[in-house]
Amino acid sequence: MKRGRDRAKQRAGESAAAEVESGMVVGLGTGSTAAAAIRRLGERVEAGLDIEGVPTSHQSRALAREVGIPLTSLAAATPDVAIDGADQVADGDLVKGGGGAHAREKVVDSAADRLVVVVDAQKESDVLDHPVPVSVLPAAEPTVTAAIAERGGEPTLRAAEQKDGPVVTDNGNLILDCAFGGIDEPASLAADLDAVPGVVAHGLFVGLADVVHVGHTDGVDVRRP
Amino acid sequence: MKRGRDRAKQRAGESAAAEVESGMVVGLGTGSTAAAAIRRLGERVEAGLDIEGVPTSHQSRALAREVGIPLTSLAAATPDVAIDGADQVADGDLVKGGGGAHAREKVVDSAADRLVVVVDAQKESDVLDHPVPVSVLPAAEPTVTAAIAERGGEPTLRAAEQKDGPVVTDNGNLILDCAFGGIDEPASLAADLDAVPGVVAHGLFVGLADVVHVGHTDGVDVRRP
Repeated sequence: MKRGRDRAKQRAGESAAAEVESGMVVGLGTGSTAAAAIRRLGERVEAGLDIEGVPTSHQSRALAREVGIPLTSLAAATPDVAIDGADQVADGDLVKGGGGAHAREKVVDSAADRLVVVVDAQKESDVLDHPVPVSVLPAAEPTVTAAIAERGGEPTLRAAEQKDGPVVTDNGNLILDCAFGGIDEPASLAADLDAVPGVVAHGLFVGLADVVHVGHTDGVDVRRP
Repeated sequence: MKRGRDRAKQRAGESAAAEVESGMVVGLGTGSTAAAAIRRLGERVEAGLDIEGVPTSHQSRALAREVGIPLTSLAAATPDVAIDGADQVADGDLVKGGGGAHAREKVVDSAADRLVVVVDAQKESDVLDHPVPVSVLPAAEPTVTAAIAERGGEPTLRAAEQKDGPVVTDNGNLILDCAFGGIDEPASLAADLDAVPGVVAHGLFVGLADVVHVGHTDGVDVRRP
């Protein structure tokens, strides 16, 4: 029997996958809850659903291929919907990037006509206070670190576990996990971070989510921010 | 005898190099006019000037080594001054990125206590209207292209000449040269471009220059915006 939290993630992912219809192009998010959606989409494709997927990472591409979802790219198609997870959700705004894929996730999620977010209940919060992953050009690590500190954040260079030194993203950048405490004005912080030279992408997704599927062990809440 | 424009670039570079004093850490820009400054700094180092350089590109690193300027990095030192060129200057605001190095140039130039810009007189304009180079994550080329067009720009993917396909920057990104016509509000366009998912860095340098050395064949104008 699945542990409660795994079941909650699975329920959220399956609920979101039910929003997808034949003929759609679907952005495929990264992480364990998005993976539950991708697996369910794979089952539906096997049963005749006609879709194409746009992966947001190496991980989501590999899983989509494994479960038989035909793939395309942003160069060839615009996603009708993207299904993606989050590290934290408050009022429909997100912190993402625990998996280091937030740069391409933001590109795909914002290109999609609709963004469907999938989380388990433990990811919900009244105020965003999860550290914000910020991917930076390697040469800019010292200056972005200083800029984050000036803005009241505490940046930590994310260390790798399966190699010495820092995590390097799929695009060759480093990640600073930046603790800001409670983020009262996410849109304002997002604009500040966008303006820091050397910042490639940050994990604040403000005003992008159209619907959030929140999984519990016994059901799913669907919230429209 | 040097052609007139080459001589103007050389004068601007040498004039800016005269601002550097022993003990300084100096950001070293990219391009032909910044190269004139780097060469003059090399002569001064040979004559006893004690500085360290922070290169902004493969090109400026190679030239600095060739002329004997000791190098350091942003991880070890903060530049007292950066000397950098521009594709166009209006009122102290710049368009940069013709050399594709604007991402790291912006990191170094904004980290420096002072930014000294070097141009020849043909780079001056009343209004910025040079196409703005925008470096983008490769996966985001289609979506950034659409976003630029929505903002009234005409993006052209920069093609390489010594390989098939597009130019790839030192950081593995692509470059869209984006014609906006006359840019009446560079700060506003800069913030808009910063916010586009997939944009790594754009070539608008707004409010960064402390002084501009404008070279002519027969002298140098020094402007303080």
